[in-house]
Amino acid sequence: MHELLSYLEVEQPRINAVLDSETEMLDELVRPVLRHVLKAGGKRLRPLLTLLTARGLGYTGEDIYLRACSLEFLHSATLLHDDILDGAALRRGFPATHLVFGQTQAILAGDVLLALGNKLMAESGDPRLTACISEAIMHTALGEIAEIAHIRDATLDFEGYLAIITGKTAYLIQAACMCGALLAKAGATIEQAAADFGLNLGIAFQLVDDALDYASTAESVGKPVGADLREGKLTLPLLHYLQAADQPERDDLAHKIKTSELTDADITALVRRVQSMGADRQTRDLAGRYLAKAAAGLDLFPESPEKALLSQMIQYVRTREK
Amino acid sequence: MHELLSYLEVEQPRINAVLDSETEMLDELVRPVLRHVLKAGGKRLRPLLTLLTARGLGYTGEDIYLRACSLEFLHSATLLHDDILDGAALRRGFPATHLVFGQTQAILAGDVLLALGNKLMAESGDPRLTACISEAIMHTALGEIAEIAHIRDATLDFEGYLAIITGKTAYLIQAACMCGALLAKAGATIEQAAADFGLNLGIAFQLVDDALDYASTAESVGKPVGADLREGKLTLPLLHYLQAADQPERDDLAHKIKTSELTDADITALVRRVQSMGADRQTRDLAGRYLAKAAAGLDLFPESPEKALLSQMIQYVRTREK
Repeated sequence: MHELLSYLEVEQPRINAVLDSETEMLDELVRPVLRHVLKAGGKRLRPLLTLLTARGLGYTGEDIYLRACSLEFLHSATLLHDDILDGAALRRGFPATHLVFGQTQAILAGDVLLALGNKLMAESGDPRLTACISEAIMHTALGEIAEIAHIRDATLDFEGYLAIITGKTAYLIQAACMCGALLAKAGATIEQAAADFGLNLGIAFQLVDDALDYASTAESVGKPVGADLREGKLTLPLLHYLQAADQPERDDLAHKIKTSELTDADITALVRRVQSMGADRQTRDLAGRYLAKAAAGLDLFPESPEKALLSQMIQYVRTREK
Repeated sequence: MHELLSYLEVEQPRINAVLDSETEMLDELVRPVLRHVLKAGGKRLRPLLTLLTARGLGYTGEDIYLRACSLEFLHSATLLHDDILDGAALRRGFPATHLVFGQTQAILAGDVLLALGNKLMAESGDPRLTACISEAIMHTALGEIAEIAHIRDATLDFEGYLAIITGKTAYLIQAACMCGALLAKAGATIEQAAADFGLNLGIAFQLVDDALDYASTAESVGKPVGADLREGKLTLPLLHYLQAADQPERDDLAHKIKTSELTDADITALVRRVQSMGADRQTRDLAGRYLAKAAAGLDLFPESPEKALLSQMIQYVRTREK
């Protein structure tokens, strides 16, 4: 994965520079909020995917950074709104924006970022790109609505869970890859391959994220372990555990989750039990199957240095520990 | 204004039918929220302006309804988020969405509507349209941020007030008219004329709205009189009143507004005093000056039945009582 890391070392600062300069052009009233959102950093996964797919498919335009940053602005907007819904205290280890600047500012800054993302994409001159990100943002919001509809709901089944994570995470990652292919005017077959690559990579990314919530320490992921369960979100490791539990334990847990009766100590103990039965590992195994589908999409790409890096990206999602 | 009313009678149901059918295509989880938002109705001012400008400038495509409805979806999204920020209890006489479905649903439904509006516009195939609405949504959010920054602030001056209402209301109305001109490929001069028409109409529309808040009865506008002041928003009628008041009264009021010390009775009495000094009338007079600028923009349009209707629209904004 050495080449991917070298690529990131060069490209992440460039992406950050464009994110900063676009933010600095906005009204001073919203800048402090956006600076706070952007300083929390993150891997810039989505813009990197746009860069890699576009370049791997032959696009050489310098405007690629503006298009790539559109995806990061859209992603940041969904995080801003998401953190309000979740009542999240931390985001990437920093205090969540709605707690620092208030909910009102967080809602409106999210709207500004949604609009900025759309504007940067519209300026590509290709309406397929704007249509692509609009579809993705709609799916993202619908995924979050579905997640909230199933909060504290231990009857959530695998299909329901998959629909939620596909919506809230995978569609925007898919859009990042599709936008790259559309910019490169790669043609219908490759555009579909980029979509398949992105969607499956995105599903796997969220599966690994959900596994990490049951596997890591608070320090390593920048938020408390078992955070999903604390927010009432039933993710795959817990669904695996519930499925394997006997009926009385399952009923008892389902009831306690529904009525928010689990104490901090209960949650810590439950996270350990989920780990012991290997449910986080099972979740990563499933991620591996989606990564194989992503790899099948990528196989259709013509050979290029970027294709090799995208392949390393698959490896990165498979093995990441935070 | 008879012809405009006849036009509305034909076109409003068509617009509503497209709004409904687009909403029905969305996921069932979000449909009840959107039905609630749309059933509150409203005049469909923005889509009507898109219809009238596009047709008046020679556009005959049947897809005009989809583009026009994009504007209404975007507008509804801003209302959804705005009502959360304001803690509004009513919208057009119906309970506000965030109170019926919860804040979470209102935030996400707003995001869905923003995305749907962008998608419907992107499907026009002309990226200038998406760029236009993205700019407008950004300005709208920034206008609302500016409004919130000046909440309970009696030092707000006329320029500050004008920037707020231009942002939060006029840019989207401007976009409605510009999109019509862009669809019709009317050329730079007419596109600018449509922008001037829309921006000034929008400023006047909000001025009249702010005047009505000091002039109407609760029944006629579907929300309590003096609602803006109750939310801590200082609008032009009150700014006029404060300017005319002597220093002690001005200081006393500024202090009470700042510290939220005004009782319901205080507010009712103050609204009456603002009315008595004719401050709502002064605000409507200023609206008239912006409507004259709107008319100057419209003058550049080629003659058409729709141009006559747009002229009646100016008259409608001038004289509306709710």
